[in-house]
Amino acid sequence: MQLHRFYSSLAIRNDNKIVVLLIDGLGGMSHKDYGYKTELEYANHPNLDRLASRGATGMLTPVLPGVTPGSGPAHLGLFGLDPISFNIGRGVLEALGIGVVPEPTDVLARGNFCTVDDEGAIVDRRAGRIPTHICEQRLALLRDIRVPQSDIELHAVQDHRFVLRLKGAGLDGDIENTDPGRVGAKPTPAKALAPGAETTANIVNAFVDQAFDRLKGQSVANALVLRGFSMLPNVPSFDELYGLRSAALAIYPMYKGLARTVGMDILDCGKTFSDQLRTLEAHWDRYDYFFIHYKYTDSCGEDGDFLSKVNHIEILDSCIDPLVRLDPAVLAVTGDHSTPAALKSHSWHPVPLLLISSTCRRDGSAAFTETACAKGSLGNIESKYLMGLLLGHALRLGKFGA
Amino acid sequence: MQLHRFYSSLAIRNDNKIVVLLIDGLGGMSHKDYGYKTELEYANHPNLDRLASRGATGMLTPVLPGVTPGSGPAHLGLFGLDPISFNIGRGVLEALGIGVVPEPTDVLARGNFCTVDDEGAIVDRRAGRIPTHICEQRLALLRDIRVPQSDIELHAVQDHRFVLRLKGAGLDGDIENTDPGRVGAKPTPAKALAPGAETTANIVNAFVDQAFDRLKGQSVANALVLRGFSMLPNVPSFDELYGLRSAALAIYPMYKGLARTVGMDILDCGKTFSDQLRTLEAHWDRYDYFFIHYKYTDSCGEDGDFLSKVNHIEILDSCIDPLVRLDPAVLAVTGDHSTPAALKSHSWHPVPLLLISSTCRRDGSAAFTETACAKGSLGNIESKYLMGLLLGHALRLGKFGA
Repeated sequence: MQLHRFYSSLAIRNDNKIVVLLIDGLGGMSHKDYGYKTELEYANHPNLDRLASRGATGMLTPVLPGVTPGSGPAHLGLFGLDPISFNIGRGVLEALGIGVVPEPTDVLARGNFCTVDDEGAIVDRRAGRIPTHICEQRLALLRDIRVPQSDIELHAVQDHRFVLRLKGAGLDGDIENTDPGRVGAKPTPAKALAPGAETTANIVNAFVDQAFDRLKGQSVANALVLRGFSMLPNVPSFDELYGLRSAALAIYPMYKGLARTVGMDILDCGKTFSDQLRTLEAHWDRYDYFFIHYKYTDSCGEDGDFLSKVNHIEILDSCIDPLVRLDPAVLAVTGDHSTPAALKSHSWHPVPLLLISSTCRRDGSAAFTETACAKGSLGNIESKYLMGLLLGHALRLGKFGA
Repeated sequence: MQLHRFYSSLAIRNDNKIVVLLIDGLGGMSHKDYGYKTELEYANHPNLDRLASRGATGMLTPVLPGVTPGSGPAHLGLFGLDPISFNIGRGVLEALGIGVVPEPTDVLARGNFCTVDDEGAIVDRRAGRIPTHICEQRLALLRDIRVPQSDIELHAVQDHRFVLRLKGAGLDGDIENTDPGRVGAKPTPAKALAPGAETTANIVNAFVDQAFDRLKGQSVANALVLRGFSMLPNVPSFDELYGLRSAALAIYPMYKGLARTVGMDILDCGKTFSDQLRTLEAHWDRYDYFFIHYKYTDSCGEDGDFLSKVNHIEILDSCIDPLVRLDPAVLAVTGDHSTPAALKSHSWHPVPLLLISSTCRRDGSAAFTETACAKGSLGNIESKYLMGLLLGHALRLGKFGA
């Protein structure tokens, strides 16, 4: 049985509220310029430490040891779904990232404008990274292209990048990239990778042919390639699975989109962590599960800015009191993955987990750091098991077996 | 997806070198005669302890909690293969142990000479443990046996034990033992356990019939039984899976053979640990992954010689400097399984793991012992995940998912 179905089979309803405070890219790596401490070890976070002393700690491995996850699998794991079975394609994620929420029947692809020579061979895979307003202009040339059996939507992302959305009945995302992946080759026709995807491949090719006609004559960005064809994973909602009325408090579109894949309501929540907590308070009675997404730690890690990541951990810590005062039945503080400033990217390192609940086993944790949590009583578990821990501590899972 | 295929799907190439120092049978058990310390806790190993303070530690569970592995599954796990799916049969392992490396089309079996009475019933299952030179004499009687469709090779192992190797096309190792497993019963004919193995079973029976004719009249070792019919597991190489040019520095034949199953080059590396490290240095530029096998700790454990195992740990520690100076991108020090002197055998106890890399999260480990490593930040993971940790820390795994 799939993990989420197993947990679902045990789920019962009650009034206990669950809050997940997700600090994006929370985990760090020893940094030689800062006494071989991680960002979390270097930061002052007395409030999180005090929470640790009332709770239980452990570590989450996002996918499997050594595996660095993208945001899609990292979040699906935290939502209780096996991130290897339920991967989210690049087309879908790109759409979610700009606030386009696909229907389950849509096919999405990530598009890149490129520049080709007179023979049609690619000379610049990114079309000189044209600015976004030129990308918009090129898309405007393509918006009234019509093909049978599908409606087409085009959305600019940034620079040369855009999203292609196909809407219609019977579409299938199992289609090979049209991007040959190298200069000197021509864009390839869309090929169905499964028998059911042939109609969709034909639709894509009909669109691309017309698009190439309309782009001809431009000096740059006179062609396009498509990749990451994908559909929303077929995921049941938190309400269906667990009887949880759930809401997300996220500022960035991609995380709103990821939360929507499991059926969360998306609350308008301002721009700061304190705004998010005010929104939480305002909607406290209406939901059973809240997902609060704190983004800035990840961005600083990606930028390689150790001290800025430290600073954003400290800001969060200094603002956390309203959340503590709401006294959820279960509060989990963790991350989706590590983003060590020393690596300037997501990484595979496990992420600290802090769980506070009147039903938890206090394990004497005195600090919320990677090193302290690695010794915590929850052990080092895959992120997909967090959902079970939350439900269990909320007394929302019935006994398994007689 | 199988674990090694999943890791393989993410693998990327770079110049970062990985070294695994495998201390065979490393893990121990509390010994009542030595203050309830393990061998590793009792030994002085300041250099390993110093490495621990620069790295991250954890524990490896070779197969599953409570399960004692043979050398085959213990090594396959360390090589990233699920040791339950990819078991190595006794026939193959026995061949590898005497330096016979099978072709993928060969069928191997472990043979025992036994003594039977006039009715053909076994009276001594080990033929009085005849010395190896008598075993050689008996095999000489059988070497010119010819059967259709297969070439037969016979290799003495030790005492009454030998290896039968069948070579030919279309052979299948799915054959039941001919060993009834008890005195008073007759050796049974080889039976195919799958339809495709019938030809091979007939070949075995044709050989055994002729062998019994030639052995008749000997007072001891006048018959034989065969068991552990098996073929090499169909395992892809490290190069195919991960783009790793890999080499093994092992002194004993079985470990050379195990390394060869995943496509490692076998380097001639002398007789001592220092010889092995000199060989490592000489071949440093030619490979991406080195597997160094240190045998003596296991042998002492098997002998129940606590202090000798302690001594061999101390010898290794005192000689390790040349390895440290080579400064591999990732160095792992661990074992394949535990061999506690108190048990005089392999055991199920998890094995300490030490990982040193500029990308590791230093976890404040101060010692390389079972107790210290059990509190380390890598947690207690199955051995099959070590490969992912090594590749991850070497930045040789790309991001999973968008």
